[in-house]
Amino acid sequence: MIFTCDKSKLQESINIAQKAITGKSTMSILEGIYIKAENNIITLIGSDKDVSIETRMEADVLQSGKVVIDAKIFGEIIRKLPNDLITITTIENDIIKITCQKSEFDLLHMNAEDFPNLPKINENMIFSIPQGLLKNMIKGTSFAIAQDETRPILQGILFEVKDSNLNLVALDGYRLAIRSEFINTSNTINAVIPGKTLNEVAKILEDSNEIVNITFTPNHILFNMGETKVISRLLEGEFIKYEALLPKEHKLLINVNKQTLQNGIERASLMAKEGNSNLVKFNIIDDSIIITSNSQLGKVREEISIDLQGDEIQIAFNSKYLLDALKVMEDENIEIKLTSNISPCIIKNKNNNCSEYLILPVRIAK
Amino acid sequence: MIFTCDKSKLQESINIAQKAITGKSTMSILEGIYIKAENNIITLIGSDKDVSIETRMEADVLQSGKVVIDAKIFGEIIRKLPNDLITITTIENDIIKITCQKSEFDLLHMNAEDFPNLPKINENMIFSIPQGLLKNMIKGTSFAIAQDETRPILQGILFEVKDSNLNLVALDGYRLAIRSEFINTSNTINAVIPGKTLNEVAKILEDSNEIVNITFTPNHILFNMGETKVISRLLEGEFIKYEALLPKEHKLLINVNKQTLQNGIERASLMAKEGNSNLVKFNIIDDSIIITSNSQLGKVREEISIDLQGDEIQIAFNSKYLLDALKVMEDENIEIKLTSNISPCIIKNKNNNCSEYLILPVRIAK
Repeated sequence: MIFTCDKSKLQESINIAQKAITGKSTMSILEGIYIKAENNIITLIGSDKDVSIETRMEADVLQSGKVVIDAKIFGEIIRKLPNDLITITTIENDIIKITCQKSEFDLLHMNAEDFPNLPKINENMIFSIPQGLLKNMIKGTSFAIAQDETRPILQGILFEVKDSNLNLVALDGYRLAIRSEFINTSNTINAVIPGKTLNEVAKILEDSNEIVNITFTPNHILFNMGETKVISRLLEGEFIKYEALLPKEHKLLINVNKQTLQNGIERASLMAKEGNSNLVKFNIIDDSIIITSNSQLGKVREEISIDLQGDEIQIAFNSKYLLDALKVMEDENIEIKLTSNISPCIIKNKNNNCSEYLILPVRIAK
Repeated sequence: MIFTCDKSKLQESINIAQKAITGKSTMSILEGIYIKAENNIITLIGSDKDVSIETRMEADVLQSGKVVIDAKIFGEIIRKLPNDLITITTIENDIIKITCQKSEFDLLHMNAEDFPNLPKINENMIFSIPQGLLKNMIKGTSFAIAQDETRPILQGILFEVKDSNLNLVALDGYRLAIRSEFINTSNTINAVIPGKTLNEVAKILEDSNEIVNITFTPNHILFNMGETKVISRLLEGEFIKYEALLPKEHKLLINVNKQTLQNGIERASLMAKEGNSNLVKFNIIDDSIIITSNSQLGKVREEISIDLQGDEIQIAFNSKYLLDALKVMEDENIEIKLTSNISPCIIKNKNNNCSEYLILPVRIAK
């Protein structure tokens, strides 16, 4: 194998493929990055078996070939080389030589035959969506994935396609996050994708209108971004019937400026950290929410102006769950719907239905 | 105590005083920030006994007074408040009330009488120096402070004033760092200041020509930057006679571009990390340094163009010691002076005598 390529392009490709390499696999070959040179294209693959990332770039390939190189040291070397052309050549004894200007590295490589094959996927694209939009939908739901491993299906995000809508749903028993967007498809899909895969996908997706094509098989999802493809296995099992969890009615409707509410809760939560309970109390009256919290260090009172339809109520929350949702909401104004101080709270954007968050209150003694 | 002040100014003052609060003291009062309000000035003090930082700011003081408030929570609250006027008032039961727009915090405070007094220092200023210059001198030497505690005096930086020069010197048994600047004084000083104090002082010093006035007493140093003063105790004991360590002669003189050498060593050290030895070998010939290093993963060869006066030599170093020095050197070109592969190496700027670094080589079998 002999090829010459541009340093910064190679560094970028390594950064992408490396996102799949978690170091958690017991197979040492998976600490390596697979590199294939052929027809003036080099293909880099990183994998941890659950998720694989393949990315392609142009290069001057003088002799085809393939190797696997330890991803960490390879990435560090390429990053530190001067911004110039790099030549990579296999030499005797399982060694590749990396040369750039007056730098020469001889590195041991592993056998490319030992690298696991990617799942074969027939790319009959099922839907496509702008990359920036999908990135936002992932960020808008992934925080609500369950952290404990008692129900593995909740460590994933549901991708639900129906009625020309893509819904992403995550929930952990205390809160539920939904993002929805119109997509141009008549397919129906119900698949759960591991949260950690999607967090890596979100890092690769660009904040742009460039399209990502998505294909499902019974066991896998494939994200095709052109030069880069991400393949992840799906989580097995059935997701929770989340629609049944959403309240059909409400008794209070609050209109409030998102940032004002978020700032007030953030300050109140400074006093709520003691004992990790994060407990903040809302006294909702007339035209205000009075937020209070206290700890050994002292107490806090925040007053937020609102527009209220309904009766006064006192209700308490874990401030972290409210803040997680508010931080990813983009609209200036939001709606909060409540029924009682022991039933779920719904938070939505005032002007669109793209985001919906459900948060359970904390029961407190009167 | 009642005063009103600007949020961002208060936040800045807290950030300064907080730098002295390490949380390592066993006295819980030293986790607090001392606040005194008087004559439309508020004074904030943070201290860990070894070092104290006092900073002053304008405020609207309606009632004088003094309190000590837990620095961490006070800093977090002020940071999160809106950018507006803040009022702080003592109320009953050892409590202060912080109000800003519609936010109200009630915080327990400690008794200001329990806060240790600052050392009394008669400010007969001994020399003054631009802040940016002193900051650079500290950064240019503090990396060479000894990390182990076997010789406490080496955990400090020597401030030596003689012949109208200020010399800062640090050494750890493997390398020695010297920074020198002309100052306008006829005094003679020989004092050792704890490295951790100086790292905090460097964070407070501005990158500017604003002056810092420095006063020494037998046990303390005081840095006066106008609104802010830092007082540190000195380390007890005699510093090593560092001048005796500097070689009087050399047999090789190398002229080299600093950044080219630094980049080459940085790349070579990627292969030298194995086993933490950081060993890089220099083969100095004719017009080049050939840097090599190897580990289980492979090997590296870097070639650096130089201008050499003297004979060829092979010499080895811990790459970290070279890089620490090169990273803080500002000149484009540097001089390296060598005598043998077992005697110290000297690195200086080509065009000035402000910086001098001594590094011991590593003995290797031929």
